Amino acid sequence: MLELNFAKSGDGLLPAIVQDYTTGEVLMLAYINELAWQKTLETGKGHFWSRSRNKLWLKGESSGHIQVVKEILVDCDEDTVVYKVEQIGGAACHKGYASCFFRKVDGNDLVLTGKKVFDPEQVYK
Amino acid sequence: MLELNFAKSGDGLLPAIVQDYTTGEVLMLAYINELAWQKTLETGKGHFWSRSRNKLWLKGESSGHIQVVKEILVDCDEDTVVYKVEQIGGAACHKGYASCFFRKVDGNDLVLTGKKVFDPEQVYK
Repeated sequence: MLELNFAKSGDGLLPAIVQDYTTGEVLMLAYINELAWQKTLETGKGHFWSRSRNKLWLKGESSGHIQVVKEILVDCDEDTVVYKVEQIGGAACHKGYASCFFRKVDGNDLVLTGKKVFDPEQVYK
Repeated sequence: MLELNFAKSGDGLLPAIVQDYTTGEVLMLAYINELAWQKTLETGKGHFWSRSRNKLWLKGESSGHIQVVKEILVDCDEDTVVYKVEQIGGAACHKGYASCFFRKVDGNDLVLTGKKVFDPEQVYK
């Protein structure tokens, strides 16, 4: 398996940036440990380590909105990766937006810029 | 000042993804604390918290390759941001590449995909 520098972080977690492989839009950021990294490489589906549930997380396991990994980039320090993905269902955010980054800074406010794709209450029952 | 969820992380640091504002290329990932966030909002230049030097870091302070922040996106949990920037000098990576993500996974290897813009030995004396 291709090694990353998991020792760099105190908790063994490294950030994985998820980017739409066609548009380049940043969809989300989540964390990986060695197991999540291995599962992603093995299956070609985006796996992460859920910090809130403290368990392996196949993105889309509840919603069906999995991420098919088309390409993986690794940074100079080998402590961050970019997953370029096809986002099944068209939305990465659990709030129903295409991207988790659906707001931008405008002065002292956050203004909506993102597109709502689904109603979370219909998807997460 | 616009608040982020700095309490989310144990060390008060949140990841900031830096993306080229015209091409969408992910250039680097670094960390921000409240001070770095405030300085970025105040000055419009990308500031971070250097984990290795444990101090505020104006990106480009040594190389001159500062990042002019054109837009800032905030994620659903308010614990990650995207800085869309104009990268002065055309290179974000201290190794001289446009992006720190200058290699991709190819089987068990990393292969070069990035473009070298400058010679680090000439820039960091």
